[in-house]
Amino acid sequence: MAEIETVGCESSIDLPQGLKRTHPCNALREQHAGQEVTLCGWVSRRRDHGGLIFIDLRDRSGFIQIVFSPEVELNAFNKAETVRNEYVLAVRGKVKLRSESTMNPNMATGAVEVYGHELRILNTAKTPPFYIQDNIDVDETLRLKYRYLDLRRPEMQRDLMLRHRVTKTMRDFLDKHEFVEIETPMLTRSTPEGARDYLVPSRVNPGKFYALPQSPQIFKQLLMVAGMERYFQITRCFRDEDLRADRQPEFTQLDIEMSFIDREDILSLMERMIAYIFKESLDINVPTPFPRISYDEAMAKYGSDKPDLRFEMEIKDISAAVRNSGFKVFDNVLANGGQVRAINVKGNANIPRRELDGLVDYAAIYGAKGLAWMCYTKEGIKSPITKFFNEQTLNQITELTAAETGDLLLIVADKAKVIAAALGQLRLEMARRLNLIDPNKLSFLWIIDFPMFEFDEEEKRWVAMHHPFTSPREEDVFYLGHEPDRIKAKAYDMVLNGIELGGGSIRIYHRDLQEKIFSAIGLSPEEAVEKFGFLLEAFEYGTPPHGGIAFGLDRLIMLMAKRSSLRDVIAFPKTQSASDVMTQAPSEVSPRQLKELFIKAEVLSKK
Amino acid sequence: MAEIETVGCESSIDLPQGLKRTHPCNALREQHAGQEVTLCGWVSRRRDHGGLIFIDLRDRSGFIQIVFSPEVELNAFNKAETVRNEYVLAVRGKVKLRSESTMNPNMATGAVEVYGHELRILNTAKTPPFYIQDNIDVDETLRLKYRYLDLRRPEMQRDLMLRHRVTKTMRDFLDKHEFVEIETPMLTRSTPEGARDYLVPSRVNPGKFYALPQSPQIFKQLLMVAGMERYFQITRCFRDEDLRADRQPEFTQLDIEMSFIDREDILSLMERMIAYIFKESLDINVPTPFPRISYDEAMAKYGSDKPDLRFEMEIKDISAAVRNSGFKVFDNVLANGGQVRAINVKGNANIPRRELDGLVDYAAIYGAKGLAWMCYTKEGIKSPITKFFNEQTLNQITELTAAETGDLLLIVADKAKVIAAALGQLRLEMARRLNLIDPNKLSFLWIIDFPMFEFDEEEKRWVAMHHPFTSPREEDVFYLGHEPDRIKAKAYDMVLNGIELGGGSIRIYHRDLQEKIFSAIGLSPEEAVEKFGFLLEAFEYGTPPHGGIAFGLDRLIMLMAKRSSLRDVIAFPKTQSASDVMTQAPSEVSPRQLKELFIKAEVLSKK
Repeated sequence: MAEIETVGCESSIDLPQGLKRTHPCNALREQHAGQEVTLCGWVSRRRDHGGLIFIDLRDRSGFIQIVFSPEVELNAFNKAETVRNEYVLAVRGKVKLRSESTMNPNMATGAVEVYGHELRILNTAKTPPFYIQDNIDVDETLRLKYRYLDLRRPEMQRDLMLRHRVTKTMRDFLDKHEFVEIETPMLTRSTPEGARDYLVPSRVNPGKFYALPQSPQIFKQLLMVAGMERYFQITRCFRDEDLRADRQPEFTQLDIEMSFIDREDILSLMERMIAYIFKESLDINVPTPFPRISYDEAMAKYGSDKPDLRFEMEIKDISAAVRNSGFKVFDNVLANGGQVRAINVKGNANIPRRELDGLVDYAAIYGAKGLAWMCYTKEGIKSPITKFFNEQTLNQITELTAAETGDLLLIVADKAKVIAAALGQLRLEMARRLNLIDPNKLSFLWIIDFPMFEFDEEEKRWVAMHHPFTSPREEDVFYLGHEPDRIKAKAYDMVLNGIELGGGSIRIYHRDLQEKIFSAIGLSPEEAVEKFGFLLEAFEYGTPPHGGIAFGLDRLIMLMAKRSSLRDVIAFPKTQSASDVMTQAPSEVSPRQLKELFIKAEVLSKK
Repeated sequence: MAEIETVGCESSIDLPQGLKRTHPCNALREQHAGQEVTLCGWVSRRRDHGGLIFIDLRDRSGFIQIVFSPEVELNAFNKAETVRNEYVLAVRGKVKLRSESTMNPNMATGAVEVYGHELRILNTAKTPPFYIQDNIDVDETLRLKYRYLDLRRPEMQRDLMLRHRVTKTMRDFLDKHEFVEIETPMLTRSTPEGARDYLVPSRVNPGKFYALPQSPQIFKQLLMVAGMERYFQITRCFRDEDLRADRQPEFTQLDIEMSFIDREDILSLMERMIAYIFKESLDINVPTPFPRISYDEAMAKYGSDKPDLRFEMEIKDISAAVRNSGFKVFDNVLANGGQVRAINVKGNANIPRRELDGLVDYAAIYGAKGLAWMCYTKEGIKSPITKFFNEQTLNQITELTAAETGDLLLIVADKAKVIAAALGQLRLEMARRLNLIDPNKLSFLWIIDFPMFEFDEEEKRWVAMHHPFTSPREEDVFYLGHEPDRIKAKAYDMVLNGIELGGGSIRIYHRDLQEKIFSAIGLSPEEAVEKFGFLLEAFEYGTPPHGGIAFGLDRLIMLMAKRSSLRDVIAFPKTQSASDVMTQAPSEVSPRQLKELFIKAEVLSKK
């Protein structure tokens, strides 16, 4: 065993007999004083003072101060002298009350310390590339490369434990409500409609490919056809899209489907589930029911289908006031079916001119050809456009926007879609600048009555806004084929603080309606059968009315943990180039592996 | 909405208002008599009798008999006349006690029936390709093609619900014992050692590939380095191997890892977990602790490292008795380091000669060049080989095998490995033929002290029997490099009724020992660093002693549900050609998809 002792450890392979941990570090309090305990953990800090050695020992639970004194046990003291940060220790010692002057109120165990009389160095450690502590300012790539060290930091451990607690309480809740967790395949069939698939070449079926699931949508509907009635699954999904900050190539979804229910059943059950999770995981009370806002209303009032309602600043329609005012810009827009709308940024009348110019540029990013403004100063309204308006018009604008002295109006005249985009973003941006958002507030809501279709300008065809299995409202089915834009879907999204947590719909469950929807999005009957034949066929064998929802788990945890990056709540995330810098995945593979799969990697011209 | 009515339903899209299900079908008992209830479900059977229509309505919970009478409500009665099997109904009616003569004791709800006065046909159904009932004799391919109908059968629903219950209780148990469920990546790096990987071409990193995980082994060890201390995950794993009856290309694993523990900690916690699961899911008491049997003992006594101990029939060594008996076949084997061993098949002395000849062939499958037999009949021992033995030898054989009148000895002389294979299989085969196996008995045990290495005859090198992260026993490390076959590993398997449920080990946690093991299995230092560099590096930053285990969930559920095929406990399994006959995955994909991934499918010559 000489070869192992070279790394400086006493027991090379096994935990030493008779040194079984008795407590987690963080468990020790005044009442343990006098007890003998055995602790295991990592050296967070060591300092020598007054002839003693002090070690902050860290485990998953927290910290405890260990003291080694030559007078207690010289052997242990001598060993403690060799210890450095991140060494792994097992320590036997006696819990003692600290003297009042040495108590540490910032430490949960700060009233006590452990005088060690037996010390085993279970493993040594090189100096880590960054400090193992919270709030470090380290390049994220380095953290990801040494993820096993990054995850030692208390805040990372806390968030992974929160994630566990959330999924546990989800399952408890759904189990109590008679949902059955059923696993669906990861090696599935590539389907159109949706994002780009990750493909997996088949060895047994040369030239054919599996796809990793973008969601278990079709399987969960088939489980309803199968009479499972209440299904859920916490499962991995995959989308091969270019990554933004809040996207990962693989992500986790809470997937739910129910039979014999209507929309209200799902919404109310899901908000109770969310309330249960927040209560059990964070001890936060979430009031239910959540407000329900139609898509049209959300777009009109907040310029977004995921509005942040932690603050007001509604978008107001001032078209009626400025119509025929003689201001050509507005008149032209109104004449062409456009609108004039404004937000009232309360108390921001003294905004510097330079900042206003910046806002014009900001609005332009979202397609606004211009941004008008009106400052309600004590000296009256300052604005480049008021000269076009008579007093009545000004009064009407003031009334419609509830503007008072000190307020700033930001006005966009354009098509409804552009106004929504520009004023919706300006609304958020101004709230951030003015610090209007209470980070401790939780604003949950439902967006309902989404349009069934939207026009894809690129592909020049109608596409399903949610997905093609979504049921239209009964009263709108009439418009199928001639006025698809008038059809609302039985779709709904749950929104928290301006972020979409999840979405779903009541589904179509009749073959002929499903075929019509496929046809409306440009799938020929042959294509529909080729791609979804098994689903269409299934619909003919007694499919119950059903609907469901899916939540992005990573995003929910991120919000609950008050983190700004999904990567902070995923144990081993991918970078924006979809790589794992620790294991260096993806990697090159052997030619033999590719040959067995009947594929060739194309050589890339380097230029 | 005319287009929808053509399929014969009243409310085409939504569940009709005011017809909310009040009870699951199976909930109704005597005490509900007189209540008005609303039920939803599928028509399991309809029969007309005495001017009434009887429908057995089925939902996830079970069955209830509905009666439609023209005297109760003509409209509902008329609609009920149009109803056929597997139609989806919502029925409002009144619960009535059945008369004593019409009670059905084979039905949980057989004491009552519901007189329907309102009927909605939520959906129609074509005639299914097979009966929706248990114990059908239908080609499995047809069942898989119409899996959504197959899963409607009560036994399939029961087993999926059992699966849910098992994973729920697993999570409850592990949560209570402070395990944290942590998700590890699905898009990982291809590694050597182990089965063939499923590969996923990367679009963002041309020419590179992810691999789907064969297990989260390395990640879970890194989570121990990260100080998570107690990890688990119920997760999908992938192996691209040729499929046998009990294999699936994707399968589910309960994966566990713990720090600061020794082997006994894991074994005892895991057997308590299994006992908890059986109690909570099936109300079966499983006694703990489980017997622990060394690999060597299991191979010697039962010829298997996963022995079925529901019956005895131990393999006995009779080498000492027959040594120098003068019987050349045995003498030669013994002279060449072989052994002579026997099983005693109690009470089978009258086995027909033809069956004995069949057993010789059976033993040959497992490599035995011959099979000797001795029948202890009332007229004395009948055997072609007794003539070679004197009375003392015969007495010794009788004593060593505890043979009595009526018994049959089956004897193999060969190398230990061949004897184990042949007699191990004969032991099982004879137990099956003689009906010695009580299907209700549960025989759990642990196999411990596995060999660290085994020699791979094909690759002409030593390979790790479990995996190369397994720790050898301290006392055996000495043999590394010169006598690898003498090294036992701290590995363990849990076995139930002759089937391996799970396996694991205490891990290596020092870089230098890990490097030595890689070297022993023929990885050069460069290869080791290239493949596992990040793990070796991690070992240098304070890795705690740790170990773990993984269970095959599908197999566990299969045994708990008393099924013989994994496919019966997986909602959407693959066939032996790794295909899904319902969705027809894998499938061909578009050239554009392949181009984006920088791969080409090789054209296969059709001949």
